[in-house]
Amino acid sequence: MDHEAFAPIIENATSVGRVIVVCEHASNVIPSAWGDLGLTEAQQVAHIAWDPGALGLARGLATRLGAVLVHAPVSRLVYDLNRPPNRAGAMTEKSESHHIPGNAALSVAERLRRTQSIYLPFHTVLHGLVAGRIALRLAPVIVTVHSFTPVYFGQPRTVEFGVIHDADPRLAHAVVAAAQGTGLRTELNAPYSAADGVTHTLALHATPYGLPHVMLEIRNDLIADAAKQDAMAALLAPVINMGIEEIQKQAKAG
Amino acid sequence: MDHEAFAPIIENATSVGRVIVVCEHASNVIPSAWGDLGLTEAQQVAHIAWDPGALGLARGLATRLGAVLVHAPVSRLVYDLNRPPNRAGAMTEKSESHHIPGNAALSVAERLRRTQSIYLPFHTVLHGLVAGRIALRLAPVIVTVHSFTPVYFGQPRTVEFGVIHDADPRLAHAVVAAAQGTGLRTELNAPYSAADGVTHTLALHATPYGLPHVMLEIRNDLIADAAKQDAMAALLAPVINMGIEEIQKQAKAG
Repeated sequence: MDHEAFAPIIENATSVGRVIVVCEHASNVIPSAWGDLGLTEAQQVAHIAWDPGALGLARGLATRLGAVLVHAPVSRLVYDLNRPPNRAGAMTEKSESHHIPGNAALSVAERLRRTQSIYLPFHTVLHGLVAGRIALRLAPVIVTVHSFTPVYFGQPRTVEFGVIHDADPRLAHAVVAAAQGTGLRTELNAPYSAADGVTHTLALHATPYGLPHVMLEIRNDLIADAAKQDAMAALLAPVINMGIEEIQKQAKAG
Repeated sequence: MDHEAFAPIIENATSVGRVIVVCEHASNVIPSAWGDLGLTEAQQVAHIAWDPGALGLARGLATRLGAVLVHAPVSRLVYDLNRPPNRAGAMTEKSESHHIPGNAALSVAERLRRTQSIYLPFHTVLHGLVAGRIALRLAPVIVTVHSFTPVYFGQPRTVEFGVIHDADPRLAHAVVAAAQGTGLRTELNAPYSAADGVTHTLALHATPYGLPHVMLEIRNDLIADAAKQDAMAALLAPVINMGIEEIQKQAKAG
């Protein structure tokens, strides 16, 4: 490929904790090659461009869990790293009610360019990290961190903490159980589930290796600033740890 | 990583046919960094080191199907590309009744080195090829090509053509049905199946994208020389095509 590659950003690279934290929608940056995609400034900072608060929460979790963190450098409106290249949502023409002019009627050449310069560098680095830790017998656990908008197509969402799984539900079930002490309105596979195609990263990196995994979805009004993100990380880090301990116990008992 | 990387070999790279042919056990080459792994010359050319005949068959199929071909440059005794890095079989200490001295009690550092220099380069290139073709809307179909030994632990195997699938059985079923005209003793999920952990390549590259896939296993006495490999490719290429046509029909009818 002869165009720029946007590698993911890795933090706590030397950590040898079990958890790998992944934040695919960390950034709202639109690289200059794509101009502004025809969006207003308000649209460029809205939830359609990224998961507001997710990176701060992911960082707080990674620090507390002794986890490596892998996060995206580019807005999901240029390429949504949690979608395969043939899904409309990978380079979406419309998000909620917003048309994305710079994504209208993309040529296959442009779809290939974005796949090669954004999607593949991210997943290649993440695959290297996962496989390397498997080789080192670190028994990785993959935790992806997302946020969702409190109001979607005009409908308020009451769930505060969604816990989603790909093929293996064990860690998600254990995290839901552990979250009961948090006071958060917690639901399994909400506000959406693997059936909606939202677990692509887990399907690529956790499921083929049989790795425990969970996708966390936090309502973004609860992590709207740095202090709230840190408080939420302090609340959820022990929940993740309890979930992992529980599936370890189950594995020994089984 | 600061050691040599062994990239896979790609043939027919410009092909735009649907099929991607993969041959993970194409080579019995042990790169100089690993000496001879303590093996005799006879062991280095035996089925424990590679799948004899598989590359010739894979080439014959790729040519006839207008398919790109991706094959391994290194013996599976150094790293078995169809196994994840935590499986004993990835860098096996024993194959059938043969001990592999150069693989005895490997350090995690050595497991990491082989993972980074052999396993990751192969699967990174294959992933790029698969994802690129998905972006180009070529609707890829993944066909992996293997051979098996006619006598295993002293027991003769009567099956001649094994057809194995990962999560989605549709193409495998259609290929078994299409093979009825060949005269080959054909069996589904024989001489082993996904439950034996033999479909790692398909689990990494086909299943996460919902791509049709099949793993072909030919008894190696049937493809022992170039003429037999070419004849087998001539026999099986139409079988693969009929299988793909059948699942296309089913998809339209469904």
